[in-house]
Order: sequence, then structure tokens, then C-alpha cells
Amino acid sequence: MTPRATTSTEGRELILTRIIDAPRDKVFRAWTEPELLKQWFAPLPWTTSKAETDTRAGGASLIVMRSPEGNEFPSRGVYLEVVQNERLVFTDAFTKDWEPSEKPFMTVILTFEEIEGNTGYTARVRHWTVADREAHEKMGFHAGWALCAEQLAEVVAKL
Amino acid sequence: MTPRATTSTEGRELILTRIIDAPRDKVFRAWTEPELLKQWFAPLPWTTSKAETDTRAGGASLIVMRSPEGNEFPSRGVYLEVVQNERLVFTDAFTKDWEPSEKPFMTVILTFEEIEGNTGYTARVRHWTVADREAHEKMGFHAGWALCAEQLAEVVAKL
Repeated sequence: MTPRATTSTEGRELILTRIIDAPRDKVFRAWTEPELLKQWFAPLPWTTSKAETDTRAGGASLIVMRSPEGNEFPSRGVYLEVVQNERLVFTDAFTKDWEPSEKPFMTVILTFEEIEGNTGYTARVRHWTVADREAHEKMGFHAGWALCAEQLAEVVAKL
Repeated sequence: MTPRATTSTEGRELILTRIIDAPRDKVFRAWTEPELLKQWFAPLPWTTSKAETDTRAGGASLIVMRSPEGNEFPSRGVYLEVVQNERLVFTDAFTKDWEPSEKPFMTVILTFEEIEGNTGYTARVRHWTVADREAHEKMGFHAGWALCAEQLAEVVAKL
């Protein structure tokens, strides 16, 4: 597999970009429709056993990832900004109804740019501290998000 | 002065409620129009030397409070939810454009309820940790927010 995603680091931010060979409304759907999200969100051999997405500013999300050993890891978050087919911003700093989470770790800014019918896909993953950005890198951000972007591209190719 | 505000503590949250003898659109204006906000936001003898309010979800705010000695203390934040005359939610977890702040300290949920032409005013001040809630209380939350609510009521009475 040719690596097609580029990742980089800027201060407290981790960035992934790649071109996805599909129109951006399909990529947006894959990020917001639970049945599609579950097909690509966790880097294989991990899987996504549950996804709930109340895709509006202030709406909550719940995504449960399952390890190869069968352990489940729920992640709760809140959407901060939703611009259909263009932009999606969410954070784990809140669970739902602006309830502060146990630990604000990251805020993700996704942009979907139209490039000749395909999608310029950029994920900016911002952390509150450099230490958290470093921790995210040690958890495997660069390889993991690139793999998930590949899985995402495969899912949207079938839509 | 009869204390007219009630404050309470619930876990990581501090709550202030009081009735303000004015319709809620005036109270909402006093929270969102810089020239009005500056008249009541800081507990006297502190003053508010600057206020900028981009009152929309994702919009930034900058409020500078000035101590009696003339020192200035800027606070930056972002509005999370804006429902005209009804509800205003903001946090210092972000500065602007979803840039994580140095320290997520609090999220404030303001509700303005119509009660026979007057306003049931409630501020829910949520913190990420019990330690931060306690620190806020030691900074004088209960007396300070009650005094500011009184100043707010005096400003809206003149509108």
C-alpha cells in the first residue's frame, strides 16, 4: 500500500491531510452516519462496536472501540461546529449538554475541500498541552490516523 | 442592601440564581452588548476596561478587568451556544477559532427565563475539576457573582 496521507506536528497540534477520491458529501456522510462510521473509525484489527452521532452544534457523540481482545473503550464528545459537507468540529472536553468531561484531551477540526470532484481532507487535532500532543503521538497518532484515513477512503469508494 | 441572589454548590458546579426586575431581552443585551457589559461585569471597585463580544456559536470574547490599583486582567473565551434572549453558553477552554486555551477552567451556562415580565436569571458555572470549583469559591465566587448580579440588575433597570 502506498501511503497516501501526510501527517505533521505543529506545537500542540497534529495534522493529517490526504486526498480522498470521492466527493466531499460522501466523506462527510462517513463521518456523521453511524453505520458508515463504524466501518472505518477504528484502525484494524480494532473495530467500532457502537456509534451515536447527534450531529449539530452542542450535540453529543458516543463511539465505542473494541480491541482485538474484546475490550471496549467508549469515547464521548460534543460537536462544536457543523457545516454540512464542509466542516466538522468536535471535542472530548464535554460529554453532553456542556458537561465538562473528566479530562479535556483534544479538539478535532475536520475540513472537506472540493478539489475537482474529489475531497481535500484535513484533520487538525489540537491538544491543550504539548504533553498531551506527545502522548497522542506515542499512542500511535501518525500511523493510526493514516490507516483510518485509508479505511475511510475505502468506505466512501463504495458509496 | 438585601441580598437578592442565591448561590449554591453542586459537585464541580457553582450556581447563582436571582430574579431581575426587567424583561429578559434587556438582561440578554447587558450580557452581549460591550458598552452595557462594561458597566456591571466586574465587582466594584474593580472595573471592566474593555469588552469584545462576537456573540455567535464559535465567536470569541475578550473582557479586560481592571483592579483598583490599575492592573489589567484579560479573559478570553468562546461562545458555545447563543439563543437570543434565552440562553448563552461560553467557555474559557478556547480562545478563538477553537484554539485550546492555556487552561480550561470553566464553562458558564446562562439562562434567562420569563417570569411575569421579569427575568429568572440563572448562571451555572461548571469546572473540569472539584479543585477548580473550590479555587473559584476561594477567589470569591459567591459574594462576587452576587454583587455583579446586583450591578447587572441596576444597569438593566435603566434601559
